[in-house]
Amino acid sequence: MNVFIVHAHPEPRSFTAAMKDVAVATLAGAGHGVVVSDLYAMGFDPIAKAADFSGRADPDYLVYALEQRHAYENGGLAPDIAAEVAKLKACDLLLLSFPLYWFSVPAILKGWIDRVLISGLTYGGKRFYDRGGLVGKKATVAMTLGGRPHMFGPDAIHGELETMLRPLLRGTLYYTGMDVLPPFYAYHVPYIGHDARVAMLERYRGHLLALEAAAPLVFPRLDEFDERLYPRRTP
Amino acid sequence: MNVFIVHAHPEPRSFTAAMKDVAVATLAGAGHGVVVSDLYAMGFDPIAKAADFSGRADPDYLVYALEQRHAYENGGLAPDIAAEVAKLKACDLLLLSFPLYWFSVPAILKGWIDRVLISGLTYGGKRFYDRGGLVGKKATVAMTLGGRPHMFGPDAIHGELETMLRPLLRGTLYYTGMDVLPPFYAYHVPYIGHDARVAMLERYRGHLLALEAAAPLVFPRLDEFDERLYPRRTP
Repeated sequence: MNVFIVHAHPEPRSFTAAMKDVAVATLAGAGHGVVVSDLYAMGFDPIAKAADFSGRADPDYLVYALEQRHAYENGGLAPDIAAEVAKLKACDLLLLSFPLYWFSVPAILKGWIDRVLISGLTYGGKRFYDRGGLVGKKATVAMTLGGRPHMFGPDAIHGELETMLRPLLRGTLYYTGMDVLPPFYAYHVPYIGHDARVAMLERYRGHLLALEAAAPLVFPRLDEFDERLYPRRTP
Repeated sequence: MNVFIVHAHPEPRSFTAAMKDVAVATLAGAGHGVVVSDLYAMGFDPIAKAADFSGRADPDYLVYALEQRHAYENGGLAPDIAAEVAKLKACDLLLLSFPLYWFSVPAILKGWIDRVLISGLTYGGKRFYDRGGLVGKKATVAMTLGGRPHMFGPDAIHGELETMLRPLLRGTLYYTGMDVLPPFYAYHVPYIGHDARVAMLERYRGHLLALEAAAPLVFPRLDEFDERLYPRRTP
């Protein structure tokens, strides 16, 4: 596999960065190609804006998704976006590596999603979910969080963690057609000591080695809906 | 009420901006104070980073939430953050105004959340949900999206819209203790014509005028959980 790791943490010596380094070593050691975009180290610009495009379809009024499509077809994407799009197209597995900020990704990574998962390539019209533009690729998430496992679950204070992550796992990664492999959650990271961290990295190593064979998360498929996207009545 | 509108759209003449203008006129017309942070117009920097703080608690290793708390207590927040925090503290109602990007807020608004909803003020330790730091304030959301109403619901292709928005409504706004008032969803905006847009703005005006009296969304309360945040067994 060609693995593309998109990593976002403001502290280069963070545990999240250590996890990213474990992912690089483990996946490369298993014979996979590994490319990393370290968004903070790159100074990645997360703001979706008019200057992301040259040769606009409509220079007077910005509809971001329309300009993404137009620029992708006409070679008008800003160079920093085009470079990320090339890495995305070349990968078999996209791995997002980040600390959970407000039950979501840090803004710099949200901006990577907003700017790089371009309309026209990753989705468009009825091309989404299992008909998305990135069908055939896989994606997954490795994240650190302050919470503990018992804070997540059907009766837990924050509900199911995968429900909190629905906009990312289903609304973003699966939306583009990618198979979403089971996420890795490193719980309680700011509060645990050295030995627990070492054990967690070891557990992450095992998770990474089993990832290629893991069953993807199950989400709705478009053939369960009619052409206007109403649910089909089962006979 | 003092209303604080945080608006994020890259096109100043967008329908989302027209909604923001309607909110300003309607709420001011009803006698409320209104302050707007137009994040694109301000060139707001969304990236959480070491330079957000002067006089670090630990200058060698960045734990973002710890530095937020330290800087808030010691006057060390970057001026752009401090200015937003002052507006937040002065408001009775926070209104987030944005187009839905990937079932979430645009990165520039995610960065406002990451940087402005600081630990120490808005939450910390066991102070979250109905014990959060912003208890007594209200918050709501007004957003535009491409999808249509029938694409959201229990059996719909994307599931419940409020479930997709859980990290924002519950995991962010309610997390800080604010009562979350019913959101306003402007569906299908890129595909509708002038008359439908005018009608939608009129519906939004009515929504805004009814907002102060609206019942907040219902979320779990901390007294349903024990001191370790396990669910209490009901007798």
